[in-house]
Amino acid sequence: MKSKHEDTVRLIPLGGLEEVGRNMAYIEYKDEIVIIDMGIQFPEEATPGVDFIIPNIESLIPKRENIRAVVLTHGHFDHVGAIPYLMGKLGNPRIYTTKLTKALIEKRQEDFVNAPKLKIEVINVWDKVKVGDHIELEFFGVYHTVPDTVGVVVKTPAANIAHYADFRIEYDAKGNAQDLDVFERVSKLDIHTFMVDSTNAEEEGRTVSEKIVEQNLEELFKAAKGRVILSTFSTMLTRIAEIIKICERLGRKVIINGRSMKEAIQIARNLGYMKVKKETIVGVEDMKKLKDNQIMIITTGAQGQENAGLSRIVNGEHKHITIKPGDTMIFSSSVIPGNERSVQNLKDNLTRQGAIVHTSKVIDIHSSGHAPADDLTMTIKLTKPKFVVPVHGYYFMRSANGQNAVKAGVPAENIRLMDNGQVAILSKDKFEITKETVPANYVMVDGLGVGDVGEIVLRDRRILAQEGMVVVITTIDRRTGKLLKNPDIISRGFIYLKENQDLLNEVRKKIRTLVGKIPRKQSPDIDYLKNIFRDQIGQFLYNKTFRRPMVLPVIIEI
Amino acid sequence: MKSKHEDTVRLIPLGGLEEVGRNMAYIEYKDEIVIIDMGIQFPEEATPGVDFIIPNIESLIPKRENIRAVVLTHGHFDHVGAIPYLMGKLGNPRIYTTKLTKALIEKRQEDFVNAPKLKIEVINVWDKVKVGDHIELEFFGVYHTVPDTVGVVVKTPAANIAHYADFRIEYDAKGNAQDLDVFERVSKLDIHTFMVDSTNAEEEGRTVSEKIVEQNLEELFKAAKGRVILSTFSTMLTRIAEIIKICERLGRKVIINGRSMKEAIQIARNLGYMKVKKETIVGVEDMKKLKDNQIMIITTGAQGQENAGLSRIVNGEHKHITIKPGDTMIFSSSVIPGNERSVQNLKDNLTRQGAIVHTSKVIDIHSSGHAPADDLTMTIKLTKPKFVVPVHGYYFMRSANGQNAVKAGVPAENIRLMDNGQVAILSKDKFEITKETVPANYVMVDGLGVGDVGEIVLRDRRILAQEGMVVVITTIDRRTGKLLKNPDIISRGFIYLKENQDLLNEVRKKIRTLVGKIPRKQSPDIDYLKNIFRDQIGQFLYNKTFRRPMVLPVIIEI
Repeated sequence: MKSKHEDTVRLIPLGGLEEVGRNMAYIEYKDEIVIIDMGIQFPEEATPGVDFIIPNIESLIPKRENIRAVVLTHGHFDHVGAIPYLMGKLGNPRIYTTKLTKALIEKRQEDFVNAPKLKIEVINVWDKVKVGDHIELEFFGVYHTVPDTVGVVVKTPAANIAHYADFRIEYDAKGNAQDLDVFERVSKLDIHTFMVDSTNAEEEGRTVSEKIVEQNLEELFKAAKGRVILSTFSTMLTRIAEIIKICERLGRKVIINGRSMKEAIQIARNLGYMKVKKETIVGVEDMKKLKDNQIMIITTGAQGQENAGLSRIVNGEHKHITIKPGDTMIFSSSVIPGNERSVQNLKDNLTRQGAIVHTSKVIDIHSSGHAPADDLTMTIKLTKPKFVVPVHGYYFMRSANGQNAVKAGVPAENIRLMDNGQVAILSKDKFEITKETVPANYVMVDGLGVGDVGEIVLRDRRILAQEGMVVVITTIDRRTGKLLKNPDIISRGFIYLKENQDLLNEVRKKIRTLVGKIPRKQSPDIDYLKNIFRDQIGQFLYNKTFRRPMVLPVIIEI
Repeated sequence: MKSKHEDTVRLIPLGGLEEVGRNMAYIEYKDEIVIIDMGIQFPEEATPGVDFIIPNIESLIPKRENIRAVVLTHGHFDHVGAIPYLMGKLGNPRIYTTKLTKALIEKRQEDFVNAPKLKIEVINVWDKVKVGDHIELEFFGVYHTVPDTVGVVVKTPAANIAHYADFRIEYDAKGNAQDLDVFERVSKLDIHTFMVDSTNAEEEGRTVSEKIVEQNLEELFKAAKGRVILSTFSTMLTRIAEIIKICERLGRKVIINGRSMKEAIQIARNLGYMKVKKETIVGVEDMKKLKDNQIMIITTGAQGQENAGLSRIVNGEHKHITIKPGDTMIFSSSVIPGNERSVQNLKDNLTRQGAIVHTSKVIDIHSSGHAPADDLTMTIKLTKPKFVVPVHGYYFMRSANGQNAVKAGVPAENIRLMDNGQVAILSKDKFEITKETVPANYVMVDGLGVGDVGEIVLRDRRILAQEGMVVVITTIDRRTGKLLKNPDIISRGFIYLKENQDLLNEVRKKIRTLVGKIPRKQSPDIDYLKNIFRDQIGQFLYNKTFRRPMVLPVIIEI
C-alpha cells in the first residue's frame, strides 16, 4: 500500500528568487536530496563592505547525509560561486556537472586552501544518472554565454522537475530557432514543474542571432583604424571565442589582459571548447612588434572595478598598455546596477585620452545569455509543464515571466511565485506552497568571515557612512563621580574637527555639566550615565548641525 | 583707441561639465558679470550622507559687486536648487527669469528663513534687457518638461554667447518639428559661442512627438479597468498637465499625492500654465465616492525615495491610499542612477499587492526633456555658432555632443570641451581655453553645514561604511607608563563583538604587551604609542579577519 506521503516531493528554493544571483534550490524525496546550483550574489547598497552574499544552508546541514547530488548547471559565479564556502559544511557531497564547469570550479577551488577536494562526476547531455534509490537525473544542453551549460530533469516517483539553468535560444542568421527538439524531448519526460529563468522576462521580443552580433562586431573591428580594446566578463567564453575567430579572419592578433580571463580562456582551450590557432593569442610583450591595426586586446574590468584589467590600463597603471588616440574601445557587457558611476568614469577617461568608445547597446541587450519574453513563452510551450516556477530574479521579473507562461498556455493558477525558503510539496497534479519555511536570509562573506557580518554590523556601517560617529571619553573618579580630566572626543565622518573647535568645546562643557549633576559621594550608575550622554550629546549635535552622528560615550572609572 | 583687452569676454563654467547637475556658469566682460543658473547635484556613491552638492562660488565672492544679473533658465533643481545657499553670499544680485520659475523659486525660498528675499525681474521671450553698461540679455522660449523654460543670448561687445537651457524639439503627430524659427532668429544675433545641452547627446535619433506619448498614455489609461496610479517628478509640469487633460477626456478625477507635487501644480494653475476644470482635481477624501475606473492618482516618489508619496502608499503608511489588486501603476520617469534598487523594491511590492505595473520605457526615454543626437545636430546647424561648448554632462556625453556639432558643420577644432573651473577667453573668431582656473570642486551641503564636509570627512565615511571601526582606549599612569586598567574596546560596523569575545581578549592582550614594552619611569611618547597601536592592532585584526577596520587608539594619561 502506497501511503499518501510517499507520493510527494519537496521543492525548496534557497536563493535567486528575491534577487539576481545566489541561485540555489533543493529537491527532497524521502531521505534523498538533490541540490541545484550554489551561487553567490554581489553586494548591495544595503550591504556595504561585504564581499558577497551566499545562500543560507541551515536547513540542509542536519540532513547533509541525505544529499545525493549537487547539480551545477554552468560555470558562472551566480551558480557556482558559493561552492568553496558551502561544500565542506554539507559533507562534500558528489557534484554532477559538465567537463568545462568542472575545470572552472576546480581552478577556483585552488584559491581556498581549507576547502575540501571536490568529488565531481562529469556528465554529458542526455546522460541519465541514478543518484539514489528513487531519484534519477537527466541532463540536456542549452545555449548560454558559457559553453557546456546544461539543464536537468530531476525525476522522482512523485514528480519530474525540470530546471533549464540560464538559457537563451539560438537563431541562425535567417531567424530560425535552433535545436528546439531538445525541449520537445524534455517535454516527453512528463514535466510536472518547470523552474524557468526570469532574468530577461521583462524584455520584449526574441533573441537576436549571435550570427548578427558577430557581423556587427566584425563591422566595428573592420572600421577601427587603430587598436581595438574590448572589455567583457571573463566568463563570457562563448562571446570571447567568437571575437577571437573574427580576429583570425581580420588578421588581428589577440592579447588577453586580466588573470581571470587568461585562466578561463586557458581552460576552455585545453578542453577543446575554444579552437584558436597557435599564433593568434600573443603575449603583451609582443605587442610592440605589431601594427596598431593588427592588435586586439581583450580585457576584464568592464564594470570599472578598481583593480581589474581595464581600469589599470585607463589609469596608467598597466606595465605594457596605455590608451592612445585612435584606439577603439568596445564595452561588450551590460552595466551591473550600482556600477554606473565607475563605468561612466572609465568612459570619460578613455574619451579624454583619445579613444573612440562604443558601448554597443545592441550587442549587450539583445544578445544576452538569457531568453527574452517571446523565447520564454515558446520554451514553456514546448516543454509542456503542469506547473511553472519562475526563478532567477526579483518578484516583478518573475511575475512578468508568469505572464509569459500564461501566454504559453499554462493556466494562471499553475504559475507559482515562490519566495526563498518557502517549502512546496509536489504530487500528481498538485503543487502546494506550504506554510513551512526554512532559513533563507542573507549569509554575508566579508574577508575571512562567513556569516559573522549580520544585520547589526550592516546597520552600523550604513549609519557610519551617512552620519559618521563621535566617541566621547569621560574619565571619572569611581568614588566621587568627579571628572578626572578634560573629556576626550574623537570623531570620524561627521565634521572636520580641526575646523570646529568651538563645537568640540561646547560638547566638553555639556559633559562637565552632566557629570556635575551626579550626586557626590555616590558611585555613579554607568549605564544610566551613558544613556544620558548619548541622548543629550546627540540632541545637542543635531540642533547645531542637523546631523545625527552615532554617539558612543565611554566612561572610564579610575 | 580700443585696447586688445576690451575685446575679450571671459566664460567660466563652475558646474555641470563633469557631472549631471550643479549647472552654473558665468560670463565676465570688464567689470560686469552675468551668471547663468545655480543648480544642485544629487549625492554620489563617493559622497555618502551628503544632502547634495552645490557649485563653488569662491571666485565670484571677491567680485560680487560686479554681478549684474543671474539668469535662471527654468525651475528645475539642477538649475536653481542652489539659490537659497548662494544668493546671500553673492550679495543677492538681481535675478532675471520667467514668471513660473520665479514662483517656483520663491516658494522654495520660504523653507530657508535666513536666506535673503530675492530680487526678481520677470522677463518674457524676446525681451532684451540691458544689465550693465556693456551687456545685454535677449531671451527666447524653448521646449522642456517644465513650462516657461528660456534660453538666453548674452550679448557683449566681444562676443555673443547663446545658452539654450535644457531643451527638446517638439514635433507634431505627423513628425514636423515645431517653432524652428526661434533658432533661426537666434542665429541672426551672430552667435560666437553656443553652450548646448548634452544630456541626451548619446541617444540616437530625434524626439518622439509628445502627441504620440499622449496617445500612448491615453491607451494605457483606457485599458486600465481599475484605478490608475502614475508617478513622476513634481517638476514635470508639462507632462502632468497633459495627463490631467487626458483624464478630463476619459472622465477620471485626479488626486494629487505628495506635497511638492501639490505645490508645483498649485503654482502652475494659479499662473495659468495649467488649465484644469475646477471639478477635475479632487481631494483624497473624495476618493471613496468614486468608482475605481474614475480615479487617477498622480504621485511623487517614482525613485523609491523613502518618505515620498509612492513609497508611503506601497508600504501601507498612507492615511487614505493603499494598493489593491487591479490597480494600474505607471512609472513615468526614468530611474536616476543609484536608485535602481529602491525602484526595483517598489515594483516588487506593487506586484505582490496585485498592481499591474508599467515602466513605460518608450515614454520615458524617447520623450525626454532633452534633445537627442539628431535634434541637437539640427539645432546647432540652425543656430550657426562659431564655437560650440557642450554643457550638462560627463566628458563622454559632451564629447558625443561635439560629434553632433561636427555633423552640423561646426569645424572639429571649434568644439570646446571645457572642464569646470576653466577660464575661456573669447574674442572675434577666437576661443582660447587659458591655463587659468578658478575653484570648482564640490561644495557639499549636509544638514545645516554648507562646505564643512570635505574630502577627509567623506573618505572616513567611505572607510567606515566598508570596514567599520575599532576604538581602543588605554588608560596609563603618566609617570610610570603602566596600564591602570583593562583596555576598553568599542567597535561598530566591523564584527559583532558580543560573538567575538576571543578576538577582543586577544586585542587586549596585545595592548598589554605593547604597553609593557614602554621603558619604565619614563613618560611615554603618546603620539608614538598611538601609531604603534594603530599599526599593530590593525595588522593583527587584518590577519585574523582579512578586514581593515579604522583603528582609533585613545590613550588616557592619569
